[in-house]
Order: sequence, then structure tokens, then C-alpha cells
Amino acid sequence: MELLFLGTGAGSPSKTRNVTSTALKLLDERNEVWLFDCGEGTQHQILKTTIRPRKVTKIFITHLHGDHLFGLPGFLASRANQGGEAPLTIYGPEGIDRYVRTSLQVSQTRLPYQLKFVILKNPGVLFEDQTFKVSFGLLNHRINSFGFRVEEKPHPGELLIDQVRAAKIPEGPLYAKLKAGETITLPDGRQFDGHDFIGAAKPGRIVAIFGDTRSTDRELPIAQDADAIVHEATFGPEEAALARQYYHSTNIQAARLAKSAHAKQLLLTHISARYLGKNALMLQTTAQQIFPATRLVHDFDEIPIPFAQGGPHNETLS
Amino acid sequence: MELLFLGTGAGSPSKTRNVTSTALKLLDERNEVWLFDCGEGTQHQILKTTIRPRKVTKIFITHLHGDHLFGLPGFLASRANQGGEAPLTIYGPEGIDRYVRTSLQVSQTRLPYQLKFVILKNPGVLFEDQTFKVSFGLLNHRINSFGFRVEEKPHPGELLIDQVRAAKIPEGPLYAKLKAGETITLPDGRQFDGHDFIGAAKPGRIVAIFGDTRSTDRELPIAQDADAIVHEATFGPEEAALARQYYHSTNIQAARLAKSAHAKQLLLTHISARYLGKNALMLQTTAQQIFPATRLVHDFDEIPIPFAQGGPHNETLS
Repeated sequence: MELLFLGTGAGSPSKTRNVTSTALKLLDERNEVWLFDCGEGTQHQILKTTIRPRKVTKIFITHLHGDHLFGLPGFLASRANQGGEAPLTIYGPEGIDRYVRTSLQVSQTRLPYQLKFVILKNPGVLFEDQTFKVSFGLLNHRINSFGFRVEEKPHPGELLIDQVRAAKIPEGPLYAKLKAGETITLPDGRQFDGHDFIGAAKPGRIVAIFGDTRSTDRELPIAQDADAIVHEATFGPEEAALARQYYHSTNIQAARLAKSAHAKQLLLTHISARYLGKNALMLQTTAQQIFPATRLVHDFDEIPIPFAQGGPHNETLS
Repeated sequence: MELLFLGTGAGSPSKTRNVTSTALKLLDERNEVWLFDCGEGTQHQILKTTIRPRKVTKIFITHLHGDHLFGLPGFLASRANQGGEAPLTIYGPEGIDRYVRTSLQVSQTRLPYQLKFVILKNPGVLFEDQTFKVSFGLLNHRINSFGFRVEEKPHPGELLIDQVRAAKIPEGPLYAKLKAGETITLPDGRQFDGHDFIGAAKPGRIVAIFGDTRSTDRELPIAQDADAIVHEATFGPEEAALARQYYHSTNIQAARLAKSAHAKQLLLTHISARYLGKNALMLQTTAQQIFPATRLVHDFDEIPIPFAQGGPHNETLS
């Protein structure tokens, strides 16, 4: 599981930062890639990575501003050109379907794969299967904007082979039963409970990806205990009033959220073109004073999400 | 007057060629830039040039396929972000207005400038003022696709100062009258006809820019006597059947058009990703055997359109 930042700028593309898109690479976990937002030129950025568009099975759109949206029709068309046939689901605010369908209709683009829309309405669980759960919450922006919480299910504990052998349990189908937590009885009458031979479950990882937003209490449940928070930092430490006026956050507000949420790391994105070089680095260093594990990301940064050391912490949005 | 190629690829962006957009720079002539097509990432390409989006006053869309269209909403939004306030007119096929308006509505993009649509219907003159005339014709593609003929009006001849002085006409307001072609009478009774003191008018230049098309007789009146023809060459010399099947042209067909039209130069664009390096060069060299003044263009090529040597040749589409 890695986060690959495809666009880390705000508003308009610049020479150094494209408009917003973040890829969550789940190749080991699901052989899939999920995109969060798809600003214009996202498919161009993908060309410079190892991501194959046909592996993108889900696209989550945080809000409908153009710098998070306008790359979607082109990406969908090129995914088709590049042999994509697997169904694709777009999760986004009301209007996302009208925008995409109009773009495809007017351009007479016919997709060879199934395109499904899930409209974000009542915050809560959006998607859940055996290995992942995604929930979302409403934020506070000029238009409806959402934050996504991606939770990996715990990995079941491994069979502790050394202990099984020490108990002189004969190899074979009984191992599978033990691993499944069943109680087995050997021909010699000895009984063993599988649970005694299974290691600790490895907690799944949590990633929280936020759309543009003013700092708001609604963020905390989305971010709680996350292994990584991806958050905008359109404004700097001295600009809380401006941030509020323009419905955005400062780097400091993002850092406070990460601290309150007991997150493992904070990745600052949606960086304004006003912040270049040293000034951009300042966004990172001032945030680190509040939350040390803060990193200001750049286009093409790829950040692995390691398993946490310690017990499970899979909280969910209710 | 220069042609600046912003995207010269076909279908999907590649690492070396973006999808289609061609800028006609008319800075000396009108202090304006006109765009022909606006594939995704056109605004990104513009960032790497000296073009200022606010100088773009007209955008002509040859047809509605996504690789010629999907950069339009982003360009319009960024033109606003970058202080563009001058009105902008989009000329395009039916549906262009629905696509743009839906994109702006859904993304809640409010433009601070007037946006006007002119829908391409009955081929003929599309725009005409003191210095330029633009006409268009229908081509032959899978969907309606058009070619544009941009004609600069002739530059009036200059006053031949040496001859005026030789005739001992006193300096002053009489010069302006002569230049305007009037007949003047001097105090000494001598009469002079202004037309005798004005040099030859300099013919305006003609640029013909084609959308995707099968080779068709409809192209010739658009291309006739052009100083530059911009034409697709999606297929190569041996692929006329494929070109026909996919509603495209070969490089050879484009060269034959340029020859028949007595054009000054042919610029081949819309190059498939199948043609790289030597193979792409082959598209140029084989076309040159038919029309020597052929050039295969690349992204960011900037090509000046010189005034023709010789007499006027301003033909018009009827």
C-alpha cells in the first residue's frame, strides 16, 4: 500500500505542481489502484509512473471544483484506448454523473467497460468487502466537499509452525483446521485448540484523504488513528483568516488535526503556487512543530504506508 | 503571424506528443492568439510557452472528439485565474456549448469574462473584420469535422516617398491624401493622382487548419493557395485503406492536397504514437516526394508564416 501523489497544486497547474490527484496503490492487497480526485492532466502524470490505467477500479472525487475534476473524461477515454475492460466505479458528489456523461456523450466516447456512479449523500460507509472498508464524511467548503477514510481489514494471524511442530501434531490437513481456529482431536486422543497456535492478527492500515475544507470538527472521526492523513494546506501559518474566508485550511490546522487524531503521519498537499522553494518548506517545518511526522509532498512522491507497530486500532465511522 | 504547435499527437497523450492544439499567434497583427482545438493539457503546454491565456480571444474547435476538446474547461478556468477579462468566442460544432456550460456549471466555475459560442452550421464565412476573415468547410470524419481557412486582408501599399519627393510635392497633409489615393492640386496648378505614388498592396497570408478527416474533395477550396496548411497525418504511405476505415488521412493524401492547392507549406500533425523517431521522419520524407515543402511538426514547434513573394492571391470560400 503506497500513496503516489500525481498532482499536489492548488487551483491551476503550475510548472512544478499539477492540479490535484492522489493514487492509493493497492497492488499487493487487491491488484488495484484507487484514485482520489482527477484534475486535468492526471492521465499525463500517470504516463510518467508505473500505474496502468486499467488497474484503476475506483475513482473518488472529493468535490466538483475543476482542479479536482477536469481530468476525468480524458482519463476514462484513455483507459479504454489502453485496453481497460474491467468495470470502474466513480464515487462523487451529486452532479459528477451529469458531468461525466455529458462529456462522454458530446465527444461520442464509447467505453468498452462498465462505468458505475455512486453519489455521495449520507455520510457513512460507502464500500465494504473482505479486505477494505471506505467511509466518508462531509467537510466545510464553498461547495460540498468530502473526506474519505480507507480502512484495511485486519490480516489474520499466521499459524505458528514452530509451536505446532513442538506439540508433535502431524503435518497435513490438520494444519489448515488449526489455522482456521478449529479444535482438532488426534488419533492418540490429544486435543488442540487452533487459537492457541495462531499469532496475533495484524491490524489493517487506515488512510484518510480529505477534500478542500475549512478546519472543522467533522474531520476528526475521519482522521482518527490514521496511518496517513492526506490534507490540503492551501494557506500558511499566518493566514487562518484568509483560509477561513476562502474555505480552505492552513498547514497548522492540518497539523493540529493529525495530532488530535493520533495519526502516524501527515502529508500536506494542495500547495498554492504562492509557496515555492523555501516558502513551501516553511509550510512543512512550521507544521512539524505541532506534528513532527509531517511531510509536504511533491508531484510523484510515493509514500509507503507501513503496518503499525502495536495493537489493532481499526476504528470506524458510525 | 506564427503557428505554435501545442499538441501534435493523436488519440491519447504520449510522453512526446500531447493531444491536439494549435495556436495561431497574431500578436503583431491583432495582439491576439487564436487556438485551434484544445485537447486535455493544452493549458499545461501553454505554461511552457510565452502565450498569455488572456490574449486568447478565439478558440476554434474542429470536432468534438475528446482529444481535441477535453482541455477546454480547464483552459477557460485558468484564463480567469490569470486575470483574463476580455471576451472570448468559441467556434465549434453543435454540442460544444452544452459540453462547456455543463462543465462550468457542475464545477461551479464563474468566469469574469464574456463567453460567446458560435455554432458551426452552414459552411462559409464565420468571422470577418478589417484585418481578417475566417471561413470553414465540412470534412469527412466519423462525426462532423471542419476545416478553417484564415485569410489576412491585404496590407495597403506604402506611399512611395522617393517618387513623391522627386515630383517636388511639398511635405505636409498632402502626403496623407496621396496615401489615401486621392487626387491633389498644388497651388502651382499641378495635379497628382495618389494611386501613382502608392506601392503594390501586400497580399495577406492564408492559413488552412484541418480537423481530422478522410481525404475528400471538400478540402481543396479550404486549402487553395494557402501559405500554410496544417493537416493530420494519422496514417502512413501504405495505409490508405486503414485511413479510410478509421476516417483519417495518410501523409501522402495531405501532400497531394497541398500540391493541388498550390500551397506554400504543409505542416503534418496528429501523429500516431505508432510513429516514433525514424518512422515519424519517414512520414515527412515520403510526403516530401510529392510536396517538398512538407514538415512534420512536434510539440512546441513555432513556425513563422512569411508574406508570399509575388502577387495577391486572396481567394475566398464562396
